[in-house]
Amino acid sequence: MNKQQLIDNIRRKQSFLCVGLDTDIKKIPEHLLAEEDPVFAFNKGIIDATADLCVAYKPNLAFYECLGVKGWQALEKTVKYIRQEYPDQFIIADAKRGDIGNTSAMYARSFFEDLKVDAVTVAPYMGEDSVTPFLGYDGTWVILLALTSNKGSHDFQLTEDKGGERLFEKVLRKSQEWAGDDRMMYVVGATQGRAFEDIRKVVPGHFLLVPGVGAQGGSLEEVCKYGMTKDCGLIVNSSRGIIYAGKGEDFASAARQAAKEVQLQMAEQLKVIC
Amino acid sequence: MNKQQLIDNIRRKQSFLCVGLDTDIKKIPEHLLAEEDPVFAFNKGIIDATADLCVAYKPNLAFYECLGVKGWQALEKTVKYIRQEYPDQFIIADAKRGDIGNTSAMYARSFFEDLKVDAVTVAPYMGEDSVTPFLGYDGTWVILLALTSNKGSHDFQLTEDKGGERLFEKVLRKSQEWAGDDRMMYVVGATQGRAFEDIRKVVPGHFLLVPGVGAQGGSLEEVCKYGMTKDCGLIVNSSRGIIYAGKGEDFASAARQAAKEVQLQMAEQLKVIC
Repeated sequence: MNKQQLIDNIRRKQSFLCVGLDTDIKKIPEHLLAEEDPVFAFNKGIIDATADLCVAYKPNLAFYECLGVKGWQALEKTVKYIRQEYPDQFIIADAKRGDIGNTSAMYARSFFEDLKVDAVTVAPYMGEDSVTPFLGYDGTWVILLALTSNKGSHDFQLTEDKGGERLFEKVLRKSQEWAGDDRMMYVVGATQGRAFEDIRKVVPGHFLLVPGVGAQGGSLEEVCKYGMTKDCGLIVNSSRGIIYAGKGEDFASAARQAAKEVQLQMAEQLKVIC
Repeated sequence: MNKQQLIDNIRRKQSFLCVGLDTDIKKIPEHLLAEEDPVFAFNKGIIDATADLCVAYKPNLAFYECLGVKGWQALEKTVKYIRQEYPDQFIIADAKRGDIGNTSAMYARSFFEDLKVDAVTVAPYMGEDSVTPFLGYDGTWVILLALTSNKGSHDFQLTEDKGGERLFEKVLRKSQEWAGDDRMMYVVGATQGRAFEDIRKVVPGHFLLVPGVGAQGGSLEEVCKYGMTKDCGLIVNSSRGIIYAGKGEDFASAARQAAKEVQLQMAEQLKVIC
């Protein structure tokens, strides 16, 4: 999916919501455990209930890998299902990979040739040749970690160099030599508040993938106030707040209700640019 | 495996070699493609041929994930096989993971509860709460990226802060608040030469996992000269240089020959401390 298609979807659906498929077998409703593939059954329920309210889905690889072979099967089925039933969805493999060139190339092969997702989250620590192999596929995206939503983001990402540039700012600046805003996005946590102002000074036109609204306590209003561009420029993710909104057989309708509430808040925010 | 057991294995085998199982289905000998599980068949051949010459095996997750379900099956079989046949081997899942707490906890579950490896490589960019969940299992290790072997290591890892501390040095210093040298190791590329001197000033007693000897051009002599401690303190990895030493039906004996050459060089280096 290219940038304009994503922008069109956001305007049409009045939503820039990404539903995070952090599907934990230990947290899904009991009645699904009788299914042949409980994780896929749960995802299918969530996806069918929310597809008209969001523009993206973000399966978190950790939650599938921890089930080994079964987890990979559930992940593959989930991505195929979204592709077939909801082709307008932007699919993000939240993997936070990054390794030496030949290894990153293997990861890229997994995600873009086999799984066929639109984007992969990548960690910048190892630099250019750990990131560029993910850029070798047409129409796909790298979403690079910049300023994350967790407490640990303060440990290294905010370190100032001699010129006063913080590490996350250096990542934003330097990585623009590798790809433009038509191929690269950045992860910026919703919990970072006014830092969005500083980020927009370095990457005024890039889309930002914003986790941390909901369970992690970030504010949608604040994110939009400081981070939104004329093209929206934001994909805001919510995982636990939506997929675990309901604990029982009503899990899908409860997820829809939770997603609808976020979508309405987003429509409100989009009035500024639409 | 604890630190003393690892040191004992190194002294007994006169080797601190880790064989990297970067098994690329596109590079293994043709005759193995007829096997039910060619990747496992290749790994088994390599392992049986090298187990007495090395102290560790390091499957690189990228090479298994890119085969989807089949890849995970091959990985699980490989780890189980090493555990059963060669219980004195230190098994490293080279995954370079790192995410917010609840996600890192899921990755940790995969590697330590299910796969049952001894160690996982972790990326430090997201800070403390992305690393500590990997420390929640007895007798297991985190191997944190510090100064990697690739060209991109210069992009961010060498950035100096206002006090003149480079990012990789801050990672080494800060992470010692999370675990000691009995639970944590660091990845330092063999291509970094004299930087090992600076690294030993910050982590004099920690084991270092050193990739980059062989295909990437690092020098074993230089690594030992600047990085070796009285307990060795080094696990030096070679992947392509050993597992692809032979291209045909002799791949295992060729790998053994290549591993033997490295082991003899290591025995020479160990004379200093034994």
